[in-house]
Amino acid sequence: MRIIKVEHALIRMPFTEDILWGSGRRIGTTRLVCKIETDAGITGWGETISLIANVPAVFADIVAPLAIGYPVADVERLHRHVLGAGYYHHKRAAVMAIAALEMAMWDALGKQAGQPLYALLGGRWRKDVEAAAYLFTNDPAALKPRLQGFLDKGFETFKVKIGFDERSDIALAEASRSVIGDRPLRLDVNGAWNPATAKRQLNKLVPYDPAYVEQPLELDDLAGHAALVAASPVPIALDESAYTLADVGNIVRAQAADVVLIDPHEAGGLWQTIKAAAVCEAVGIAVTLHSGAELALSQSAYVHLAASIPNMSIAIDTERTYLGGDISPNAPKLTDGRFEVPEEPGLGVEIDEGLIDKYRVDGIAGAYLDKERKDWFPVKPAY
Amino acid sequence: MRIIKVEHALIRMPFTEDILWGSGRRIGTTRLVCKIETDAGITGWGETISLIANVPAVFADIVAPLAIGYPVADVERLHRHVLGAGYYHHKRAAVMAIAALEMAMWDALGKQAGQPLYALLGGRWRKDVEAAAYLFTNDPAALKPRLQGFLDKGFETFKVKIGFDERSDIALAEASRSVIGDRPLRLDVNGAWNPATAKRQLNKLVPYDPAYVEQPLELDDLAGHAALVAASPVPIALDESAYTLADVGNIVRAQAADVVLIDPHEAGGLWQTIKAAAVCEAVGIAVTLHSGAELALSQSAYVHLAASIPNMSIAIDTERTYLGGDISPNAPKLTDGRFEVPEEPGLGVEIDEGLIDKYRVDGIAGAYLDKERKDWFPVKPAY
Repeated sequence: MRIIKVEHALIRMPFTEDILWGSGRRIGTTRLVCKIETDAGITGWGETISLIANVPAVFADIVAPLAIGYPVADVERLHRHVLGAGYYHHKRAAVMAIAALEMAMWDALGKQAGQPLYALLGGRWRKDVEAAAYLFTNDPAALKPRLQGFLDKGFETFKVKIGFDERSDIALAEASRSVIGDRPLRLDVNGAWNPATAKRQLNKLVPYDPAYVEQPLELDDLAGHAALVAASPVPIALDESAYTLADVGNIVRAQAADVVLIDPHEAGGLWQTIKAAAVCEAVGIAVTLHSGAELALSQSAYVHLAASIPNMSIAIDTERTYLGGDISPNAPKLTDGRFEVPEEPGLGVEIDEGLIDKYRVDGIAGAYLDKERKDWFPVKPAY
Repeated sequence: MRIIKVEHALIRMPFTEDILWGSGRRIGTTRLVCKIETDAGITGWGETISLIANVPAVFADIVAPLAIGYPVADVERLHRHVLGAGYYHHKRAAVMAIAALEMAMWDALGKQAGQPLYALLGGRWRKDVEAAAYLFTNDPAALKPRLQGFLDKGFETFKVKIGFDERSDIALAEASRSVIGDRPLRLDVNGAWNPATAKRQLNKLVPYDPAYVEQPLELDDLAGHAALVAASPVPIALDESAYTLADVGNIVRAQAADVVLIDPHEAGGLWQTIKAAAVCEAVGIAVTLHSGAELALSQSAYVHLAASIPNMSIAIDTERTYLGGDISPNAPKLTDGRFEVPEEPGLGVEIDEGLIDKYRVDGIAGAYLDKERKDWFPVKPAY
């Protein structure tokens, strides 16, 4: 079964409310969605994160032309072919661009096999997939009722953005712990701290017993993270630093993380995610998935991955609760803080092409700038 | 003096002959050239490497719109503004895109000051700039007359691509040493070796006394390079690994290189190059410049940098001898293997807009694929 046609569209999905974090304000998400047709008459759908114009450019100019004629099963070869087409110069765009196509290849392969995707990814390891409640506010007073809302919906793990300023970091952790009891609390700094601030803040956070503090330092600073891992009782998670398989290899060699977040789009696809998780499994590190506001296709892929990877044993991130819409009538269901695992062949997601037309856009609005603050831009480390 | 208008064009320049290296065959180069106009009536020109579509996409969608209204002197702020506009997701494209604009800012600033660019970059440290003869063939017999040709033209430093296969690596080194006597010999692997091969090959190369072996392992493998630095008498240079200032910081912390090659386009501009060189200066490491087939604008920027940076004390790379044309009538002159330092204000390069029209292209031909071998793509490590 070979690929004979590739189409793609950019989808802009608004959020139901603004999201605040250490790099500004987000009002929605842009995703690249693709459809492949095969010589067996089977179609496959895929999706990737697309924050700036380099992703659709590389998809249209490199990924789509190379994919024509490829056997649908050759995900590893096509991944390397795309990377090879630009050497190291386009790696960060290429992995995101190939991820959409690769997901569509898996979808088509699952449909051909008549199997849900998890059955092609090592088989089902867990019955459902826990998701973390995700909270984005710099106001401790506003945080509490939002946490309570997620508690009331049955969530059992909580992830709270910090990284706004020194004082609110601690106040947000204190407010969180006061609401959620002894449930797992993740705190995400998004690289806003410098090394000196990180040491002081981690020490102040010890009383609130975080499950982990995520990406305390800038993404390039593995040595700095390794020093924190060695010195602090608070577990350190890496996300932005853990992009590709090679990045995860370096994190493990540097002992720079206690927990690793992988993003299949940023790793170059589902297969690369499985391999990156295996690197962590080999040294006893639990992994989870970064969320960039997945629509139904990526959300389903996430659930299949999390259902099948043994050391993806902690709740996955999801921004699903903030999405203002979707392109499918049957995205994976989130009930009591847990995703049901799709049982239909492939991703198990039907796409409503009318909804693609509804949300289709020509380009990407500047992802990290703030229209209300013209001269502002995010600087890391911030403090 | 503020930027009021930004234009850009893609330029495709053929080579006078095919170039072979560890990632295939190159037949020419694509560069993005930009022109800025200021409210003082002064124009500036800049150039960057543009191997795939992510560079013009980020230039058009992020860099050019952000630049309007910026003070021409604010190169650091605009660099960070562009990076902030895409967080870490577009770093590798963003640094290349901003590099063109930043070069144009320096050109305009130099013209306003009535000073050659080196005078704004710490002042002139050396009288001219040595360039290395650059050789690209996997055939030791063909290599010898080419080396002799460069010797006859007065070159005193030689850089030879290896990384094709185990045997030719050594044969090319042997052939080189037999022609150039005791002059400096650089050998560039472009990441083709795995760690086991690297140990064996470095040991076999000791008799040919390389000035350094460049990028023996893949670009992500700082730990592997650090092990080679510690174990081998052959100096190790890093190029692909040494992209941004943070990359150079990590190389120094890991003790992963004896020599560092910087590329102003890949570092995000001339100012970032000066800072990266300073990191190396602080620990006694000599730096030089990577070449990606610079046209006149980038070539002049290279000469100004090399004339002013104290520890840029070894010959710079240049692919200038393979260029089939240029867009300027007064690119820096290369005589007896040395570049004259321009004395006119700014970059000191006049642009012939008729030549821009002559070489202008709409898109980028796949940089690293080989039209003559449809199914082939470069894989690293190769052996």
